[in-house]
Amino acid sequence: MVVVMKERASDEQVEHVIAHLVELGMDVHRSSGASRIVLGVVGSGKVDPRLIELLDGVHEVLRISEPYKLASRTFKAEDTVIVSGDVRIGGDEVIVMAGPCSAETETQVNSSAAAVKRAGAKVLRGGAFKPRSSPYSFQGLGEQGLQMLRSAANAQDLKLITEVMDISQIEVIDKYADFFQVGARNMQNFTLLRELGRTRKPVMLKRGISATIEEWLLSAEYILSGGNTQVMLCERGIRTFESATRNTLDISAIPVVKQLSHLPMFVDPSHGTGRRDKVGAMARAAVAAGADGLIIEVHCDPDRALSDGAQSMFPGQFDRLMAELRIIAPAIGRSICLEPVARRGWAR
Amino acid sequence: MVVVMKERASDEQVEHVIAHLVELGMDVHRSSGASRIVLGVVGSGKVDPRLIELLDGVHEVLRISEPYKLASRTFKAEDTVIVSGDVRIGGDEVIVMAGPCSAETETQVNSSAAAVKRAGAKVLRGGAFKPRSSPYSFQGLGEQGLQMLRSAANAQDLKLITEVMDISQIEVIDKYADFFQVGARNMQNFTLLRELGRTRKPVMLKRGISATIEEWLLSAEYILSGGNTQVMLCERGIRTFESATRNTLDISAIPVVKQLSHLPMFVDPSHGTGRRDKVGAMARAAVAAGADGLIIEVHCDPDRALSDGAQSMFPGQFDRLMAELRIIAPAIGRSICLEPVARRGWAR
Amino acid sequence: MVVVMKERASDEQVEHVIAHLVELGMDVHRSSGASRIVLGVVGSGKVDPRLIELLDGVHEVLRISEPYKLASRTFKAEDTVIVSGDVRIGGDEVIVMAGPCSAETETQVNSSAAAVKRAGAKVLRGGAFKPRSSPYSFQGLGEQGLQMLRSAANAQDLKLITEVMDISQIEVIDKYADFFQVGARNMQNFTLLRELGRTRKPVMLKRGISATIEEWLLSAEYILSGGNTQVMLCERGIRTFESATRNTLDISAIPVVKQLSHLPMFVDPSHGTGRRDKVGAMARAAVAAGADGLIIEVHCDPDRALSDGAQSMFPGQFDRLMAELRIIAPAIGRSICLEPVARRGWAR
Amino acid sequence: MVVVMKERASDEQVEHVIAHLVELGMDVHRSSGASRIVLGVVGSGKVDPRLIELLDGVHEVLRISEPYKLASRTFKAEDTVIVSGDVRIGGDEVIVMAGPCSAETETQVNSSAAAVKRAGAKVLRGGAFKPRSSPYSFQGLGEQGLQMLRSAANAQDLKLITEVMDISQIEVIDKYADFFQVGARNMQNFTLLRELGRTRKPVMLKRGISATIEEWLLSAEYILSGGNTQVMLCERGIRTFESATRNTLDISAIPVVKQLSHLPMFVDPSHGTGRRDKVGAMARAAVAAGADGLIIEVHCDPDRALSDGAQSMFPGQFDRLMAELRIIAPAIGRSICLEPVARRGWAR
Repeated sequence: MVVVMKERASDEQVEHVIAHLVELGMDVHRSSGASRIVLGVVGSGKVDPRLIELLDGVHEVLRISEPYKLASRTFKAEDTVIVSGDVRIGGDEVIVMAGPCSAETETQVNSSAAAVKRAGAKVLRGGAFKPRSSPYSFQGLGEQGLQMLRSAANAQDLKLITEVMDISQIEVIDKYADFFQVGARNMQNFTLLRELGRTRKPVMLKRGISATIEEWLLSAEYILSGGNTQVMLCERGIRTFESATRNTLDISAIPVVKQLSHLPMFVDPSHGTGRRDKVGAMARAAVAAGADGLIIEVHCDPDRALSDGAQSMFPGQFDRLMAELRIIAPAIGRSICLEPVARRGWAR
Repeated sequence: MVVVMKERASDEQVEHVIAHLVELGMDVHRSSGASRIVLGVVGSGKVDPRLIELLDGVHEVLRISEPYKLASRTFKAEDTVIVSGDVRIGGDEVIVMAGPCSAETETQVNSSAAAVKRAGAKVLRGGAFKPRSSPYSFQGLGEQGLQMLRSAANAQDLKLITEVMDISQIEVIDKYADFFQVGARNMQNFTLLRELGRTRKPVMLKRGISATIEEWLLSAEYILSGGNTQVMLCERGIRTFESATRNTLDISAIPVVKQLSHLPMFVDPSHGTGRRDKVGAMARAAVAAGADGLIIEVHCDPDRALSDGAQSMFPGQFDRLMAELRIIAPAIGRSICLEPVARRGWAR
Repeated sequence: MVVVMKERASDEQVEHVIAHLVELGMDVHRSSGASRIVLGVVGSGKVDPRLIELLDGVHEVLRISEPYKLASRTFKAEDTVIVSGDVRIGGDEVIVMAGPCSAETETQVNSSAAAVKRAGAKVLRGGAFKPRSSPYSFQGLGEQGLQMLRSAANAQDLKLITEVMDISQIEVIDKYADFFQVGARNMQNFTLLRELGRTRKPVMLKRGISATIEEWLLSAEYILSGGNTQVMLCERGIRTFESATRNTLDISAIPVVKQLSHLPMFVDPSHGTGRRDKVGAMARAAVAAGADGLIIEVHCDPDRALSDGAQSMFPGQFDRLMAELRIIAPAIGRSICLEPVARRGWAR
Repeated sequence: MVVVMKERASDEQVEHVIAHLVELGMDVHRSSGASRIVLGVVGSGKVDPRLIELLDGVHEVLRISEPYKLASRTFKAEDTVIVSGDVRIGGDEVIVMAGPCSAETETQVNSSAAAVKRAGAKVLRGGAFKPRSSPYSFQGLGEQGLQMLRSAANAQDLKLITEVMDISQIEVIDKYADFFQVGARNMQNFTLLRELGRTRKPVMLKRGISATIEEWLLSAEYILSGGNTQVMLCERGIRTFESATRNTLDISAIPVVKQLSHLPMFVDPSHGTGRRDKVGAMARAAVAAGADGLIIEVHCDPDRALSDGAQSMFPGQFDRLMAELRIIAPAIGRSICLEPVARRGWAR
């Protein structure tokens, strides 16, 4: 913390601020410039910068950022790689997770899973508990949906990720899924984050719709500080004044996060745009900007999906996108694996 | 829903859109203008407007707002008044709730409660479970804190409001508090809202930091649709690009909500500004703009508060503010009651 | 400027940063904390903080705010009062400026001016050059409009404020108006600001729709540094994600600006809300929060106005608003004068 | 325009709204649904939707978007291609414009121009009139700077683009530059746009920092409606709450604009991020998302640049970026030409 005194602050005011900080257990270093005095404040005490700002003679308090520790590159310089079976997240390969918004029927889940596998996805995504903003909408199939998803993933040799919305769901989801997903609305549900910190399964933490990157990393810290080191981040759009897209997908968060943190960084272009005809462009942009992975909604029959159909890709669109991504990835020294079946000529 | 076709949409495209909507159970009314065709779509079916927007020949889909029903003035024209003992929320009197951010010690709770009572507050506010964005901060006293708060409220003949963060806390809070408070971060915690809809105690629902007014009313709908008709709304600041204040308190939400909804509307100028020297101005603005009530952080010794001290008022500041509000309220036909003890000359 | 080094920055990195800053003409004070080194940087040289941030070993650079000088309370502690005839802006009286969006006809200007005068306004507002976002809309009457406005102001003993959009209009507007108004879109038109700094007529500078308060004060600095000390600020709404109102009127900017600067602070609730049924609530809020004045659109027949009719008040609405404001102003030690004719019983 | 009546609107209210619209010269089509009446409104008259919204019984007015005409794909389906010498903007090739923020000295301009030419840029960018937010900063070299830029462009066989800030500068810039650039702050300087509409030289129109895409296209309409059909758009970052980057570069604007308009779409990753270590990632993202071109700040010695050094790339960084872009472009069927000299092995 750095305390900047007003240009005309009196000696008494400066002394009072210093004494107050020392009383709170801090060390204070004083720099006297030509026009004003600046105090460097360090120490193990806890001080609310806003309280210092209210003291007489204080111009402003500059906070040194990075209240998160475990999530930062300062703490851990090398990239975190999360391994689940033969899937390595955060390594050279860009990992694509894909599948329907929600599990609806066995046929729908199975055929969607087969489609994303053929195109090269490594992880099946799909929801069983749906947090909908209207109380009058489809709310998901619950455990039955989880069973369908697990069975489809097994049949296709895919890993499974699904959303957990409440601590009461952790146990049942843990039985079926390989990765937990925390949705944007729960990014600051600290009760949930703390519990997930006690599990030993990887967690994908989506960015809240109006969360700063710093707040997001602090939420990751909740999980990490519980002992679960396997956290992935996922950008999915922030709220801005622009209404042409549902949200504004913050592609620049990719290089920013990769610099600040060692955690793998995903992008969700489906929620980030809200319309399937914009998903491809944003998925390509994410990979070009250095994302470690994508999570994309793909549905075998999106026009009849019970939720999020408008942002779900047709299997054919997804195939083409994967082919485009395979051209882009090498530009930044990455790859996107082609599955054997696809290599036999399916994708194009 | 209104579907606007492109200027050069073909007859086939128009017919296809109509057929598709009819298949989904909708009635379609067609208006042919000079340059384009507009389709009015009504009916009991459920259609995702974004899916229609993706059909060939469609220029855009205009959504008729107000997916919420029970929260709207269309459903209930007269103001909802919530009664708890002799406190009437949403009537002629502007109700002020005040107290410390968190319960810390008996002395602190008692003396803060006495101070806000003397100045004219009707409800004590205070937290026992604290959702902090850093995992390394003070997390509240739990049930012990609730006991302190209840006992102080009883001693001062005040009602009590406290925050519930998770469904597991509903039962214990129900034992002590008169009103539940749902924080901004939980505005879209639908699991929690649904459970609160099953209780019969009034709920204050704070606006999420980046929630639109429409989303906020839809969250209120979750509680109302469970059968709990006693919902109050509370504006507490939205996230904008401006960094001089922690958030931007959206005072214009007051007249907007009062027009769209019958629910009582509160404002929290403490979280809305983050600094006690700005709280008074915003509290006055809120009452002048027509708020039904205020919820304000007041602490007997804010410089030593364990949380949010910088935005907590000193008792003397709060006294002066209440005196100012008593001048303003009549401008819009409201009042703010003076307590007997204050009437005997304490307030100034 | 304060340079915060990384926790693991090497001595060489620290030395390199210091040497670089010294070369640029700065003085550097070094504070070595337990975990990191912080450098206080002062001096007359010019350094782009972003360049320092790119140096090896630098964690972040904290900028000490307030690059503006003449606009700050540090430079001038007492409030600036602008005097024009018997109108004193920035004193005890809250000054209300009102009138139509644009001059359309003599009758319209005259009857609008008479209406605002009767209700207690001191300054007539009205536009002759209209910056419209569509090239196909009404663009104003030009000098003929200025003549109408001046003549109506004279007839009612009102001062006149009108918008200047381009340096080519300064001369003609100077002939007719008492105050220049710079619109939100021109807040960073530095060519225009510089020229207005050379005039000796008061200038009202509106806040840009996405300008921070700091940028706004820096724009005021352009005018002040040219030698024109008579600058008023005017908040008129910022762009946010909320779409229920055209913009979000930032009422909290009032206490913030009053603390940072000595310049008079106005609020425009007409552009700030975009709808006349919200103007009253926001005008009351602005006065309650401490604004020095208001600028409000009032039209004798708003439903037939050529521009901005929806946000223009009817004369009767404006009368009622002025009566409400007269109740509120004393709460913060201000007044709003009643005109003789109004005192004779017109206003209510 | 579509007028949605309240559910309980009376027949009188409906009739009054219709009569009012007819009086204003509009045709009205009435659709009576089960719960409410919707009016389709078309015609050549001009109606402010907000005025209709204030009429009794009206629930809301839905505006059909696209007040711009000439800029829309409806008006012109095929992509606009702008040709200047052998540079074709908007065709298969992605065009890169690069150079220093401002012209400072002959050596600096010449060596920067040579560097960007070698790497494959087709157009030199550079400023002579600098709009700086502080009145105390470097303001550019004026015509002398234009001469330097022209001479360097000629020597390297590059086209030249430079910013015009005021109508008084059009004539002199027209003498030296091949393209006009309108900066973000002037996006709604309608006086300037109108004048540029009268020239016959291509104009690059940057998006305002808080402009919606619709407003931006409407500003393009100002230029187009003057008869100048050669307009390029350029996204350069919008203002959001995120402070880790100077602005948030809205990559999703690329697919949105390409769908709505036929005009070429550029991206400026330098202003969009504000830091050179983020420029590469965002440039790659822009090309991957389908941008027609990039405009990038490159300086021969960025650490000593008089303006924007922190966001200017070193020549070597720019070379690497161009090589990466050449890998990405084919993924979307585009190319980025390699200059003869580069082909001889310089770039890597």
